[in-house]
Amino acid sequence: MTGYQQTLKPFLWRAQNITPEREVVARTHEGMKRYTYADYGDRVGQLANALEAAGVETGDRVGTMCWNTDRHFETYFSVPNLGAQLHTINPLLPDGHIQHIVDDADDKLIFVDPSLAEKLASAYDPEAFESVEQFVIMGSEVPDLPLEPITDYESFIGDQSTSYEFPELDEEQPAGMCYTSGTTGMPKGVEYTHKMLHAHTMATMVPQALGIDNSDVVMPVVPMFHVNAWGMPFTAAAAGAKQVFPGPSPDPSDIARLIEEEGVTLAAGVPTVWLGLLEYVGENDVDLSSLDRVVIGGAAAPKALIEQYDELGVEVVHAWGMTEMSPVGTVANLKHDLKDAPKEQQFDVKSKQGLIVPGLEFKVVGDGGDEIDWNGEDFGELLVRGPWVTMEYFNRPAANEEDFDGSWLRTGDIVTVDTDGYIEIVDRADDVIKSGGEWISSQELENAIMAHDDVSEAAVIGVPHERWQERPVAMVVAPEGTDREQLSEELREMLLEEYPKWWVPDGFEFIDEIPKTATGKFSKKDLRELYEGEESEL
Amino acid sequence: MTGYQQTLKPFLWRAQNITPEREVVARTHEGMKRYTYADYGDRVGQLANALEAAGVETGDRVGTMCWNTDRHFETYFSVPNLGAQLHTINPLLPDGHIQHIVDDADDKLIFVDPSLAEKLASAYDPEAFESVEQFVIMGSEVPDLPLEPITDYESFIGDQSTSYEFPELDEEQPAGMCYTSGTTGMPKGVEYTHKMLHAHTMATMVPQALGIDNSDVVMPVVPMFHVNAWGMPFTAAAAGAKQVFPGPSPDPSDIARLIEEEGVTLAAGVPTVWLGLLEYVGENDVDLSSLDRVVIGGAAAPKALIEQYDELGVEVVHAWGMTEMSPVGTVANLKHDLKDAPKEQQFDVKSKQGLIVPGLEFKVVGDGGDEIDWNGEDFGELLVRGPWVTMEYFNRPAANEEDFDGSWLRTGDIVTVDTDGYIEIVDRADDVIKSGGEWISSQELENAIMAHDDVSEAAVIGVPHERWQERPVAMVVAPEGTDREQLSEELREMLLEEYPKWWVPDGFEFIDEIPKTATGKFSKKDLRELYEGEESEL
Ligand SMILES: Nc1ncnc2c1ncn2[C@@H]1O[C@H](COP(=O)(O)OP(=O)(O)OP(=O)(O)O)[C@@H](O)[C@H]1O
Ligand SMILES: Nc1ncnc2c1ncn2[C@@H]1O[C@H](COP(=O)(O)OP(=O)(O)OP(=O)(O)O)[C@@H](O)[C@H]1O
Ligand SMILES: [Mg+2]
Ligand SMILES: [Mg+2]
Repeated sequence: MTGYQQTLKPFLWRAQNITPEREVVARTHEGMKRYTYADYGDRVGQLANALEAAGVETGDRVGTMCWNTDRHFETYFSVPNLGAQLHTINPLLPDGHIQHIVDDADDKLIFVDPSLAEKLASAYDPEAFESVEQFVIMGSEVPDLPLEPITDYESFIGDQSTSYEFPELDEEQPAGMCYTSGTTGMPKGVEYTHKMLHAHTMATMVPQALGIDNSDVVMPVVPMFHVNAWGMPFTAAAAGAKQVFPGPSPDPSDIARLIEEEGVTLAAGVPTVWLGLLEYVGENDVDLSSLDRVVIGGAAAPKALIEQYDELGVEVVHAWGMTEMSPVGTVANLKHDLKDAPKEQQFDVKSKQGLIVPGLEFKVVGDGGDEIDWNGEDFGELLVRGPWVTMEYFNRPAANEEDFDGSWLRTGDIVTVDTDGYIEIVDRADDVIKSGGEWISSQELENAIMAHDDVSEAAVIGVPHERWQERPVAMVVAPEGTDREQLSEELREMLLEEYPKWWVPDGFEFIDEIPKTATGKFSKKDLRELYEGEESEL
Repeated sequence: MTGYQQTLKPFLWRAQNITPEREVVARTHEGMKRYTYADYGDRVGQLANALEAAGVETGDRVGTMCWNTDRHFETYFSVPNLGAQLHTINPLLPDGHIQHIVDDADDKLIFVDPSLAEKLASAYDPEAFESVEQFVIMGSEVPDLPLEPITDYESFIGDQSTSYEFPELDEEQPAGMCYTSGTTGMPKGVEYTHKMLHAHTMATMVPQALGIDNSDVVMPVVPMFHVNAWGMPFTAAAAGAKQVFPGPSPDPSDIARLIEEEGVTLAAGVPTVWLGLLEYVGENDVDLSSLDRVVIGGAAAPKALIEQYDELGVEVVHAWGMTEMSPVGTVANLKHDLKDAPKEQQFDVKSKQGLIVPGLEFKVVGDGGDEIDWNGEDFGELLVRGPWVTMEYFNRPAANEEDFDGSWLRTGDIVTVDTDGYIEIVDRADDVIKSGGEWISSQELENAIMAHDDVSEAAVIGVPHERWQERPVAMVVAPEGTDREQLSEELREMLLEEYPKWWVPDGFEFIDEIPKTATGKFSKKDLRELYEGEESEL
């Protein structure tokens, strides 16, 4: 016999009892809200009683389509500790995807932010939403919308008792659910058991991951519908850190103000968030002195960004993860012998995706099926496994066949590993271009092209070619009035300086905008569809 | 379905592959040894092949009676990853206990340090040791001793291959085993599954526990036969920290030298070790500048010790644990709002046993069976549960009945909890003295008495009393030539200043030495036996 079940319960209990005085702060549509973990625990208890009264039972799924707020955070512990499953829905998905997701997950209840209620109403479809018995709006008023039956959160928890005796749960009980971003196809559902989220919570606290402590003031800017805001609400509660929730669609001024006013020490989000804040800080008088580190993930953190934050006295912690991994997998912490290395070298290391978090294992399999050498040059597909990595998708037998190799998850990311063990993502398996039997990294070309001052965005895709099987073509977004021919020529020359001749795209096409996914990633799937059937004739 | 099995394998893999260059250093009977985690991994592989060749199979127990050395560390990962169970034997136990333990555990092989081989030979008993097929001496020579068959470690691993494909293990597979210290009775066996040790390893890395990182240089002075040196060898490997093993019977000069020469940042041991080092530092020129923090546990860290280390620029991290808890349970880290508190207040907090580590839960049950108030005054028995807390003893049905309440382990420690959640141990349940229906803390009285300059050691026990049920009597050790009557009078007066009259012991008995257990704790069980049948007539 072994130790006690690994669930989310001890983390709520610890926040409530060991750090009851620590604050939870939220920017909401009702203004700034502020309470303590003690109050939080009471509200979680009320919500649990309300959910029970609403007929939510062990194994039921409860959906949320919400921004990062105090109320959304209340569902985070209340729903799973009840034995039900918290299913966070990404409101930025197209209606069709939302319908698929709600239908697939069979959500019984859906919590929705006032600002997202219209979106939900537009995605509403009686068949796909058949399982949904009730909508709860995250506020104290009910808007006039065709979502039925609907109540507001404050009436929902109403005068329920603040104490709730959560049941003894098995650690294998599903606690959460999230769908992948759909960058490479229809979003796939991933279920998180209590054990997975428990293990992820413990793991992200360790210094070789994010090192979150009681003295931290944590602000997840990454939305709570993106893999539980990378698990931060759980991790911060477990550590007894203060939490700051930036609310609906925070813009750079909101983020700057919250950092200043609440003394945020650690914030997390995708690169665009931090690019936006940087611009804002350049034009306004912002005090970032409390900010110790920003965690950047979801897409590669550009080296320039890392440097610029360093100049502001803020350390960038670059991390890589996947919905399938709860999500944190690697973190680009400096190894002990790099702590005194020249800054330039540190930035190079920090722009890699990082070192595997303790508790996980990985391997990288090259084209021929063998593991690659760790020399920073050879590349192959990254496979991972560990206690917080899923071993199957929900309802997706075909993907389960394809994306797993025994206990290993095929990440679909093509990477190199250097002699120090740092992983660098060079491309997605689907995006990599194979020309004359050799691989070309579309992401590297994109970054190189985007480094040109006249290019605002660029995506490189492979198009079929008779002789070379595939050839790269670049889609470029440039300001109106640009001399396209000249820019193409400049880009060609620029690339030739750094890359072999055959890496240079056969063509530069100018488009208005790169299509994006619901998480703001380039949708190269959509771009490729444009080219389907066409051959590169250049 | 959930994530991958929680075993010790990923930690070995990470040390070997992600931090292969980090060093493992040991003071041994052959002099200083030094190699890297890469070399370490090779030797672990060799040992695994050798164990397999020796017929060790899944589920077998492998005993070690060894100091903290590189070779002992090799068994730490090799034995469990093979599916066998590492049983660390405390060489300080009386022969009878060792016989009981080897017999109870059915060890198949025993590794023994050269310096402990005589001890093992003296404890050897053909019947109790029936299961033991082979002895392996931790060196490259075999001493002349009646232990048969015996080989030396270097011949044992000989020219075995350095690579070993460890099997896929179930996380419920027992990985380790350790017996309690026997302070309150016959030592009880605790089995650690892979999952428990995995969870403990992750937990002890977190900042709210010990916060061990890749930049640390960790020296466990606590012996590796005491609950795996508090799990440090696993935790340090997982974090990629450098490890320093202080070898057989290290004295303060060894410890000081290792800190200086190896740049130790974090060391761990029982209070007496740190008292010894302090004396040594007072008399010698020692450079402790690398030393950041010392973890003190196993017995209460006196406040004076915490203060004195603070003056040397070293932070004391006071921790409480039990064999049953793998062992770390609480750590006296300062809460965020105490970081800027006056030193005096900080020392008060740090002399408590601390805050519960995230992932665990506790409750304190008072005399009447209800949970006590967290007011720093009310006390009761501490109960704990969590992923790295055992839920049963090995082969001890009666103790299993008594010491567990469902999923809760009754710790046998009597504690208070203050409003900030800090736990303070006031006594052991067995040692607490009940006088006229009120509790008296024997530990508090002992500490107060030992604060007198003329007292080197003191133990207080309860002896039966007709009217008061039990009354305290103090056993005092004082230098020869002390005026005992006068000292008793002084102690009485001292105590009266701080405690109610009825707390003052009825008598002060002078003895030569307080009997001690194998871990150096006062054996009040032995003292009480001296008094059995006698009534306090005072
Ligand atoms: N720091 C990072 N640098 C580069 N890429 C990253 C980083 N972090 C995450 N990613 C990318 O994001 C992916 C994980 O994203 P997510 O789980 O949100 O869904 P997705 O892979 O974009 O969508 P789908 O799996 O549905 O195609 C990773 O596999 C990787 O390609
Ligand atoms: N920091 C500490 N302060 C005070 N006491 C401590 C501390 N750490 C550990 N202890 C004591 O040590 C006990 C755990 O010790 P261990 O598991 O080695 O066996 P034992 O309890 O001494 O022996 P047995 O259980 O066989 O009677 C705890 O229950 C507690 O009483
Ligand atoms: Mg994906
Ligand atoms: Mg005990």
